[in-house]
Amino acid sequence: MDFSSFLTSLGTSFLIFIVLMLLFTWLSRRPGNSVVYYPNRILKGLDPWEGGSRSRNPFAWIREAFSSSEQDVINMSGVDTAAYFVFLSTALAILVLSGLILLPVLLPVAATDNNVKTQKTNGNQTFSEIDNLLMGNVKDDSPRLWAYLFATYWVSLVTYFLLWKAYVHVSVLRANALMAPGLKPEQFAVLVRDIPHAPEGQTRKEQVDSYFKSIYPETFYRSMVVTNNKEVNKIYEKLEGYKKKLAHAEAVYDESKKTGKPEGLRPTTKIGLLGLVGRKVDSIEHYNEKIKELIPKLEAEQKTTLREKQQACAFAFFTTRVAAASAAQSLHAQMVDTWTVTEAPEPRQIIWSNLKMKYFQRIIQQYVVSFIVALTILFYMIPIGLISALTTLDNLKKLLPFLKPIVDIAAVKTVLEAYLPQIALLVFLALLPKLLLALSKAEGIPSVGHAVRATSGKYFYFIVLNVFIGVTLGGTLFSTFKSIEKEPNSIVKLLASSLPGNASFFLTFVALKFFVGYGLELSRVVPLIIFHIKKKYLCKTEAELKQAWFPGDLGYATRIPGDMLVITIALCYSVIAPLIIPFGVVYFGLGWLVLRNQALKVYAPSFESYGRMWPHINARVIAALILFQVTMFGYFGVKKFSFCTLLLIPLPILSLLFAYVCQKKFYRSFSDTALEVASRELKETPNMEIVFRSFIPPSLSSEKADDDHFEDALSQVSRSGSFA
Amino acid sequence: MDFSSFLTSLGTSFLIFIVLMLLFTWLSRRPGNSVVYYPNRILKGLDPWEGGSRSRNPFAWIREAFSSSEQDVINMSGVDTAAYFVFLSTALAILVLSGLILLPVLLPVAATDNNVKTQKTNGNQTFSEIDNLLMGNVKDDSPRLWAYLFATYWVSLVTYFLLWKAYVHVSVLRANALMAPGLKPEQFAVLVRDIPHAPEGQTRKEQVDSYFKSIYPETFYRSMVVTNNKEVNKIYEKLEGYKKKLAHAEAVYDESKKTGKPEGLRPTTKIGLLGLVGRKVDSIEHYNEKIKELIPKLEAEQKTTLREKQQACAFAFFTTRVAAASAAQSLHAQMVDTWTVTEAPEPRQIIWSNLKMKYFQRIIQQYVVSFIVALTILFYMIPIGLISALTTLDNLKKLLPFLKPIVDIAAVKTVLEAYLPQIALLVFLALLPKLLLALSKAEGIPSVGHAVRATSGKYFYFIVLNVFIGVTLGGTLFSTFKSIEKEPNSIVKLLASSLPGNASFFLTFVALKFFVGYGLELSRVVPLIIFHIKKKYLCKTEAELKQAWFPGDLGYATRIPGDMLVITIALCYSVIAPLIIPFGVVYFGLGWLVLRNQALKVYAPSFESYGRMWPHINARVIAALILFQVTMFGYFGVKKFSFCTLLLIPLPILSLLFAYVCQKKFYRSFSDTALEVASRELKETPNMEIVFRSFIPPSLSSEKADDDHFEDALSQVSRSGSFA
Repeated sequence: MDFSSFLTSLGTSFLIFIVLMLLFTWLSRRPGNSVVYYPNRILKGLDPWEGGSRSRNPFAWIREAFSSSEQDVINMSGVDTAAYFVFLSTALAILVLSGLILLPVLLPVAATDNNVKTQKTNGNQTFSEIDNLLMGNVKDDSPRLWAYLFATYWVSLVTYFLLWKAYVHVSVLRANALMAPGLKPEQFAVLVRDIPHAPEGQTRKEQVDSYFKSIYPETFYRSMVVTNNKEVNKIYEKLEGYKKKLAHAEAVYDESKKTGKPEGLRPTTKIGLLGLVGRKVDSIEHYNEKIKELIPKLEAEQKTTLREKQQACAFAFFTTRVAAASAAQSLHAQMVDTWTVTEAPEPRQIIWSNLKMKYFQRIIQQYVVSFIVALTILFYMIPIGLISALTTLDNLKKLLPFLKPIVDIAAVKTVLEAYLPQIALLVFLALLPKLLLALSKAEGIPSVGHAVRATSGKYFYFIVLNVFIGVTLGGTLFSTFKSIEKEPNSIVKLLASSLPGNASFFLTFVALKFFVGYGLELSRVVPLIIFHIKKKYLCKTEAELKQAWFPGDLGYATRIPGDMLVITIALCYSVIAPLIIPFGVVYFGLGWLVLRNQALKVYAPSFESYGRMWPHINARVIAALILFQVTMFGYFGVKKFSFCTLLLIPLPILSLLFAYVCQKKFYRSFSDTALEVASRELKETPNMEIVFRSFIPPSLSSEKADDDHFEDALSQVSRSGSFA
Repeated sequence: MDFSSFLTSLGTSFLIFIVLMLLFTWLSRRPGNSVVYYPNRILKGLDPWEGGSRSRNPFAWIREAFSSSEQDVINMSGVDTAAYFVFLSTALAILVLSGLILLPVLLPVAATDNNVKTQKTNGNQTFSEIDNLLMGNVKDDSPRLWAYLFATYWVSLVTYFLLWKAYVHVSVLRANALMAPGLKPEQFAVLVRDIPHAPEGQTRKEQVDSYFKSIYPETFYRSMVVTNNKEVNKIYEKLEGYKKKLAHAEAVYDESKKTGKPEGLRPTTKIGLLGLVGRKVDSIEHYNEKIKELIPKLEAEQKTTLREKQQACAFAFFTTRVAAASAAQSLHAQMVDTWTVTEAPEPRQIIWSNLKMKYFQRIIQQYVVSFIVALTILFYMIPIGLISALTTLDNLKKLLPFLKPIVDIAAVKTVLEAYLPQIALLVFLALLPKLLLALSKAEGIPSVGHAVRATSGKYFYFIVLNVFIGVTLGGTLFSTFKSIEKEPNSIVKLLASSLPGNASFFLTFVALKFFVGYGLELSRVVPLIIFHIKKKYLCKTEAELKQAWFPGDLGYATRIPGDMLVITIALCYSVIAPLIIPFGVVYFGLGWLVLRNQALKVYAPSFESYGRMWPHINARVIAALILFQVTMFGYFGVKKFSFCTLLLIPLPILSLLFAYVCQKKFYRSFSDTALEVASRELKETPNMEIVFRSFIPPSLSSEKADDDHFEDALSQVSRSGSFA
């Protein structure tokens, strides 16, 4: 890619961003769109327009984003989001601090040398203005390389310092959230799995109760045996579906009264396959009948489920947070694979179907999944390699000759040349996350938050291995496969020597990601269009409308690995091609700004894990740093800077040491709840019945339950007959 | 070594054993020796002669050993000893079950082939009758090798099966011991380390008390801050020394009254260096004076220590076992490296000077120690290699020519040839354990039991690497060092092909170990002689006498690695040279018998860790098994049994899997106390003041403390002023 096509790409991206931002400014002021641009505020019962963003200047949202505090983020979107912003600002700070030294030092050092020109006069390589600014422009074994060595150390030290500060910060965030005086039901519960067979003449419930009563005579409240809810869920969902359809039909009928004849037109429905064939019936009557049919069926199934479908797992409830936190960390049974007790997930994020899985089954599934993921990562590399080879313009022209006349137009050519490989890559990457999430859930993980973390990890390995290393090595990998086989550590050298050639590719890639990606993010064009279509043609009831604009969450499973890819690219190129740094700064700066707006106003978090993903983020930034240090080691080798190359050896060791110390000092406080945190006093004595009820899945909670509410609050274990 | 010298060695060993056993039978019946042969019974306040072992037949001790139950062993010597017997009987069972199949199958298969003879007629190798029975006598790529392949699988499967049974058994032993209703002070206490700086205006004691009070408002009893006792210990020991000397002098004076003049001869002592120079004084008066001087000094130092020498660690006491067990497993502080809480060791085995060590200091020291141990293991290999090269007779004759006339006598020659290398090895090995124990203590381990486990591990690595692999490869290693460098996995082949040549060495080694080793063990000749010398010339008081016969414990730090070496040798040779199996059976059978006698009557355990060393024993037997499987893989390769060699690949994988499953299923119940175990009811409500007092080191417990005993039992934290 030459310099002009690089500039064109940058310009186009910027233009798209400006257009999308103007679109956002215009669209977000229209009252009909408030549910698309302010859903989180609306869900929290706040006025969407508070702060005057509607009436005043179009950049008010920027001011609001900057003036919002961390506490605002926590209040609106939870600790996980706040931790995510710590990550964004840490990445930003790493790049800014690195850039402040690297840009003024390294660019002049490279620009005043002329390695590339010398090579050009000798050979016939393509050559552009960018290449003059890269480390490649410094001659082999030149004393100027000392500056690059120093730069490598500077970037590493800055990263250590900021990561440490960030870890302490997130640790405090987590502690504060966990010790908050508000009632969080999951802090009073533990998840008990691998319960052994109940002894003769004892129900599961009695078994669990007597076990915990004997260990915790004072703090144990009661237990809830987990049941197999497959059947009851099916009926419940059917019932809810009919209820929705009934509401929809009634809304259609009401509307027809207003618009058409005053007596209205009763909607009809076909009762055959998918409502497309079969006899026509009156919808309202039909659904009412179905609902009447299903209610007793549901009640009967609820009873059967509670009585007969109990599984070997349960939730145990304690009257204090300390007791629950301490129980979740303690070994209960002499046989480690029975009575395993762990922290209870939030009720909303429990993956019920995974709870029953046995100890060794979970371990086996974990290994099986790891194996499948490894295969996936390895085999996705092949199509990506093909795509990046195919989507160069010359190849396209050869493969699809009829495109030639269009492609040869100068403007089209430049744009295509700049974007084609990147777009292909982005599209390709969109296919994977669902697969990885499904795989993660198959590991037997009990909570959605944990599954998302596991997915994020898998996606990170995928993205770094395939996109970063795959694209960098590209075609060269296969041709040089034999040489790698002979000498495995030559892969570092190969990677290092391939890096500079792809600098402009990644510059464009990052620019595309932030301008177009964040532009789309902010303007929410796609959700807006979908919402308006649904509103116009499908939604009749309030519930349907809410479903149409419900925003979802930030989507950490793919968002964090995406950001990780950018920080990996930025770190790895920071010294070789310091030009990447401003791009990285804009990526994280713009990201911080746009997502601050989205976190405060748009997305509604679907779970809260109190920053538990931070250790993973920290570990992966360090992994990116080590990759950077190793490739620099290789590149200094390529530059024949022999003695000083050895000076780089301490860096990866230092990074591993840093990771080890971080892990030792902080990790356990993220995987467990520290007792000093759990022992903080609550605002008021917790109503244990509310805690208990919040864990009942909706398909099992009957309306009648409310009646015996007060009676039960005192009787503790006596309910064993009536409930599970 | 030829066959006759092998038989001579065996015969001599057996003769020595018979002599030692007769010696034991004769000596142990003499009443004056009862303190040497029955000290454990005497310490427990039992009649040494109960069961009539004195009067009746000389083999009564064997009957007694066989008829004793596991519960007897636990009562007399604790759970650790019982677990050690489980190890001995498991090793015995593995070898018996293996031998039952291997001996009748493999010996005829080898004896009827004639690979060795064929080679002999071609070359001029030494050749003995033993070699006919080895796997080496089977021709390359012969179908007879299938029998050896089957044997390898049989040994592996037998080992898995018995190890699993043993692990379950020891786990139950541990659980039963931990849930016993008797009062064990350490079950009510936890060790708290890494306490952060106390806030302004709070004493250390107040800080600890308020911290635990807030987390455990109901179960926390009180705390004891650990102090730097170096000074006070010095004074205390001096005082105790003078007290002993005073008692000695008084005893001497009393004796002189009886034997000499009726007014007696007052003993005198010189007050200069080591009591050898200086002015003569009356001993009794002198020591009385010194004691009078020291008592107030000790009291003053006790006060200073308690007030001013408090360290950043403490013991916290709880009123229930569950609370203590749960606290020891829970994270207390958000910063993981502060307030680390672990199980408290038994008071008698606390290593006080290690308690103050900080979190990261402990980790660093661990790595430093590992590094030093690795160096030790590597560099000890060189002298061992030299010794095994030097101590062949031919070399000795060359080096020390004046020995030639003696050495050339036929009988001397045979004995020397049989024993010299083995004796050199045994002497050499006696030097190391103290060093390793000191290194283990330097890791910052808080209890003696743990330090002994760590030493045992280090010694195991040392012994397997240096003795087993070192001797096997012997001189060949250095000459073939270059070929290993080129192709690292050739070491397996090298090891495998060196094994058969050393079979007779290890047969002799094992025989020497059990006949002479267990003969000395049973007869206790050395302790007996030392005791009688001390009794005659040094001991005057009862206390001195007791010190002279006090038996010490079983010495797991070296005993277990020694047994491990034998099981490693037996496993590795089991298929190549099945003759080793009967030797191994006799080793573990005789060991079981002799040590049963010693455990019941002689040794007094110096700590109790409730079988915590079992996971290590289990892991190391598996390691020995893997070594066996890998060398078999190599040896089948040497035998050019190509296809079936591949059939051995699953075995090491299976072993690793087995180790993994064991670790997952059992390990945590050995490192932590399961709450269901700790929740068993006690015989009576524990007297917490007794629990608390048992942790006060003797140098700090003053006689006055008894006065405020009852007052304190109620006041809990109020004592903070008066004690620590």
